[in-house]
Amino acid sequence: MKKTAAVIGTGLIGGSIGKALLAGRSYSRVIGIGRNRAKLRLALKEKAVSSWSTDYSALKEADLVIVCTPVVHIENIFAKIGPSLKPGCIVTDAGSTKERIVKSSAKLPKGVFFVGSHPIAGSHKRGVGNADGRMFFGTLCIVTAAKGANSKAVNSVASLWKSLGCRVMFMSPSEHDRTLALTSHVPHFTASALVLAVLNGDKKRERVLGKGFLDTTRIAAGSPELWCEIASSNRKNIALGIDKVISALRKIKKNAGSRKLLPLLAKASKLRGKLK
Amino acid sequence: MKKTAAVIGTGLIGGSIGKALLAGRSYSRVIGIGRNRAKLRLALKEKAVSSWSTDYSALKEADLVIVCTPVVHIENIFAKIGPSLKPGCIVTDAGSTKERIVKSSAKLPKGVFFVGSHPIAGSHKRGVGNADGRMFFGTLCIVTAAKGANSKAVNSVASLWKSLGCRVMFMSPSEHDRTLALTSHVPHFTASALVLAVLNGDKKRERVLGKGFLDTTRIAAGSPELWCEIASSNRKNIALGIDKVISALRKIKKNAGSRKLLPLLAKASKLRGKLK
Repeated sequence: MKKTAAVIGTGLIGGSIGKALLAGRSYSRVIGIGRNRAKLRLALKEKAVSSWSTDYSALKEADLVIVCTPVVHIENIFAKIGPSLKPGCIVTDAGSTKERIVKSSAKLPKGVFFVGSHPIAGSHKRGVGNADGRMFFGTLCIVTAAKGANSKAVNSVASLWKSLGCRVMFMSPSEHDRTLALTSHVPHFTASALVLAVLNGDKKRERVLGKGFLDTTRIAAGSPELWCEIASSNRKNIALGIDKVISALRKIKKNAGSRKLLPLLAKASKLRGKLK
Repeated sequence: MKKTAAVIGTGLIGGSIGKALLAGRSYSRVIGIGRNRAKLRLALKEKAVSSWSTDYSALKEADLVIVCTPVVHIENIFAKIGPSLKPGCIVTDAGSTKERIVKSSAKLPKGVFFVGSHPIAGSHKRGVGNADGRMFFGTLCIVTAAKGANSKAVNSVASLWKSLGCRVMFMSPSEHDRTLALTSHVPHFTASALVLAVLNGDKKRERVLGKGFLDTTRIAAGSPELWCEIASSNRKNIALGIDKVISALRKIKKNAGSRKLLPLLAKASKLRGKLK
């Protein structure tokens, strides 16, 4: 029997998930839930959902609920949706940090199964108008279960992402946040810091910028609001990572002009050169 | 009457200059000077030079001498070539830092005109086998004259690079080194520091790396020897630039989790977003 899914937050990610589920075999219905009626109507028109509501009570028919709102809203949503959820339903999310979200899932009622997800896909584009059911093909999704999570629910969530085309990797919520701080968040803030250190509106200086600088700072052009939110939800790990970068910069500065710099740069060159 | 040029150091840059000059209208001969006979023979075979010598006395016929060796050797070369230079000849270089080189050009005899150059071209490839006379087309060359430099010589050197297809920008040697520290050297060392902070050979972590990290650290794979040399020849400006990056990183770390982060990230996003 085909099942019912609900997507809370029908932007680029929620809309893409909705389209993918409606194109697949397991779900006959995707209910879009949100606050903004115009956006929900657009999601319906774009065929990212099969119906919509501004009321959480519409969740009562859902076998699967995917929360795709900005990270800051997820905790509050968990606190509110409990009474509307069907016993046995599976809840997941698409937030880019996990420790706080998985912790706050304790607010969900017993008999409902939460497993965190972080699909590492996305685009500089936004909104359901850019949603694409094939957006997750070939991308990585990290699935993060709390200690003692129901293993059937963990497998269901992993299967969900696989059915959307993702490679799935399992991590604990804290391993996820430590890892992403280093592989994604700290690189972003390092690029921002480099821009702030180098650019001051001087046109002559801008004319000298080469491909190296442009590559190294490209991600700094990303959404300030989104990255503020990520900084807030993964503050401690990001602070530790920034300290590591500062310490490496200090070492390079201290050894500039000495042969001791060579093994440092050689190590960095070798580690980076091995990647594509 | 067609003139004679000499290129000291016939690698990728020296070889590309030689090819471009031999393809142009002003020079009938390009003499390659170096220490390694096999490399010089290859330069002749590749038509990057029209003759070669391991002896500086071959410089006596040159109207133009371009020093294309690694930066560390240039000072020593200036100290040695003086007796072989023709009175009135113009000497330039292709080194990527300028203050020390322009200062050490005082070792050249009176009656010989030195003007520094930094063609911002290049490639991860090396050697005269990869030399290309069109390599400089559309690239930037910064021409750096010492105070009181002969203006005819400055114009000749600027014309040389324009004839090779470069846009020419004039800077004082110290302005060049301050600017390049920020636009090129510090971005390189920041990318190296990020690699050293993030990568430790952990395969699981590597599987999570996205396009953002790969873009941000691409330049860190560059030649450790070359960048050691650059660090040594522009140490003070690089140290000042690294301090600026550290200070921006500290500010981001301090404000992570507060709304004060937003204007910082918004400024970086706007400054970077304006560039391509």
